[in-house]
Amino acid sequence: MSRSPRRLVILAEGEFRPHAAKTALGVIRYGPDPVLAVIDSTRAGGNASDLLGPGFDVPVVGSLEEVLGRRPTALLIGIAPTGGRLPPSWRSIILRAIHAGLDVLSGLHTFISDDPEFVAAAGAAGVELIDYRKPPERMETSVGRLHRPGSRVILTVGSDCAIGKMSVALELRGAAARAGVSTSFVATGQTGIMIEGWGVAIDRVVSDFVQGTCEWLSEEGEALGDWVFVEGQGSLDHPAYSSVTLGLIHGFTPHAMVLVHKPGLLEHDFVHLPERSFPILPLPRMIRIHEEIAGLVAPSRVVAVALNTSLLREDEARRAIERTADETGLPCDDPFRFGGDRLFAGLRDNVEALPWITGSEAAA
Amino acid sequence: MSRSPRRLVILAEGEFRPHAAKTALGVIRYGPDPVLAVIDSTRAGGNASDLLGPGFDVPVVGSLEEVLGRRPTALLIGIAPTGGRLPPSWRSIILRAIHAGLDVLSGLHTFISDDPEFVAAAGAAGVELIDYRKPPERMETSVGRLHRPGSRVILTVGSDCAIGKMSVALELRGAAARAGVSTSFVATGQTGIMIEGWGVAIDRVVSDFVQGTCEWLSEEGEALGDWVFVEGQGSLDHPAYSSVTLGLIHGFTPHAMVLVHKPGLLEHDFVHLPERSFPILPLPRMIRIHEEIAGLVAPSRVVAVALNTSLLREDEARRAIERTADETGLPCDDPFRFGGDRLFAGLRDNVEALPWITGSEAAA
Repeated sequence: MSRSPRRLVILAEGEFRPHAAKTALGVIRYGPDPVLAVIDSTRAGGNASDLLGPGFDVPVVGSLEEVLGRRPTALLIGIAPTGGRLPPSWRSIILRAIHAGLDVLSGLHTFISDDPEFVAAAGAAGVELIDYRKPPERMETSVGRLHRPGSRVILTVGSDCAIGKMSVALELRGAAARAGVSTSFVATGQTGIMIEGWGVAIDRVVSDFVQGTCEWLSEEGEALGDWVFVEGQGSLDHPAYSSVTLGLIHGFTPHAMVLVHKPGLLEHDFVHLPERSFPILPLPRMIRIHEEIAGLVAPSRVVAVALNTSLLREDEARRAIERTADETGLPCDDPFRFGGDRLFAGLRDNVEALPWITGSEAAA
Repeated sequence: MSRSPRRLVILAEGEFRPHAAKTALGVIRYGPDPVLAVIDSTRAGGNASDLLGPGFDVPVVGSLEEVLGRRPTALLIGIAPTGGRLPPSWRSIILRAIHAGLDVLSGLHTFISDDPEFVAAAGAAGVELIDYRKPPERMETSVGRLHRPGSRVILTVGSDCAIGKMSVALELRGAAARAGVSTSFVATGQTGIMIEGWGVAIDRVVSDFVQGTCEWLSEEGEALGDWVFVEGQGSLDHPAYSSVTLGLIHGFTPHAMVLVHKPGLLEHDFVHLPERSFPILPLPRMIRIHEEIAGLVAPSRVVAVALNTSLLREDEARRAIERTADETGLPCDDPFRFGGDRLFAGLRDNVEALPWITGSEAAA
């Protein structure tokens, strides 16, 4: 997990906007390496600070060549499209980066290290091709491992995909560290792995081994800290990704869950057929469903709600947080916008009172 | 789907018993090819009819060599162990079969066609190595496809894994055909594929593509018949396999489900730690949970219960069927033991009355 820092250029051609470029934005906000520039010729002249706020001054440039003078050492592919394939128009940019001596870092389903043209070019240039989504060689189903005594495994779950489950887990890990407790973060997607340096892209694992892989990742996380914040994936009601979500819930068997929700979002971004609609469900129902489904394997409770208030003005956001706390009876905040300390303090109290933490359920 | 018949020998060394040899037993009972013998030196002299009843006269022999005189053309690996690996002691039997000119058919996670020693031997002997669990090249997530008008997609679900979901789907397909309706069977596991000649072992698919693959398989099944019986996998409350189960529910979006249950089974066959227990849940609760979870993506209902009464005497079985019908208010039978006609007739009435079949839900 320790290595010399890279100097990154992030490729997000045509896509440097909130949803599509979530990998780019996650790496800029949370990653350990300096980011020199983002490539998106359709937004050249812009800056990451337009999307992430003043602390994140990264220029958007029109081409790789404009940034080569600043000695980048790696090109990071900054999108995670549905299905994870490489847009064909990006091939030439990647080849130029390789020829210029840059490593290439990818989280796509299509592995760049399996691509003969990239492999040949990388061999000639002496650079590395790294696929963060490549699954481990392990082929093991779940074995029913118990959590390490003293650990608190917290999984972020959501009312939709791509609304901030990774960011919430990272903000809570930061808050836990500031509160002086031993803590770790478990990455379950390619962006989280790029940020943290380890983890598994669970959506790339063979389905029979999803829960076994989660169980193993939990053990790794518990070895690194007491408060283990696990990045969730998808949502239980998402037509395309719910099975991955359930695999995390039943594989990590979290002591508690944090429900992430984006007020103002009304439907899953999925298909738009008149015959089918996929509304975002009311939070009390989502909380009940998560607790019931988790409880089929191990008891768990939703102990806090994290809002992604990016669609709201600040005063609206504060009102939404208050309303959600009232509606659910749970601690609520937007840790991305307002910091995670208050949310961590609230959920910590709830977790410490859980019967399966205090041990009182044995008496029940 | 049409090919010349094979003459099979089934390898089940040390494992020719109900649970462990479910692939062997499924192929003997439902497969299209004659089975000359089962190899299990620990049960030599036995017969498949001891397990399956008088219609299935297949001798158990001690070695491959005893059956070569009957001109077998393929060796089928008849177990599906947890994790799907090849027992090391079976390697020499497989190599001898290859040298004797037999194709080798496998449903293991460890692909025999990736094994250099097997590949070299098969090349020299001119035989085929077939891995039924190999996933398709497709990498597509779900796209929200609607079912073909007129189709009825029925998924078998279960209160545990390995209790007969495939057999129930096959028996119901047979009953539907006898009732004169157009019907098909969709195999989602290696044994079903060996029997039917097509399908995908869903537990081998990359998790991100599970629901997309199910959606595509549904389309294939609907092209072959109106009443589409889909083989289920795992159970929603199984610690190791629930995510695959949910992938089938949300990927096939079945109009209706048939719940398979084995009276007398009290716990999932999983881990046996004093701290963890995994009881089989009461059927009314399982029915409610399945309907609620399915309904997160598309409405569905449990329209019948199929019992696996193999742990019961015949009079006990008939009483259990009656009791279950009373308890759930649903048609109930053991289609494996007593035939599927009565169960199909009952579930057919229930399916035809579903609001999403009659179209009346649009008015609601």
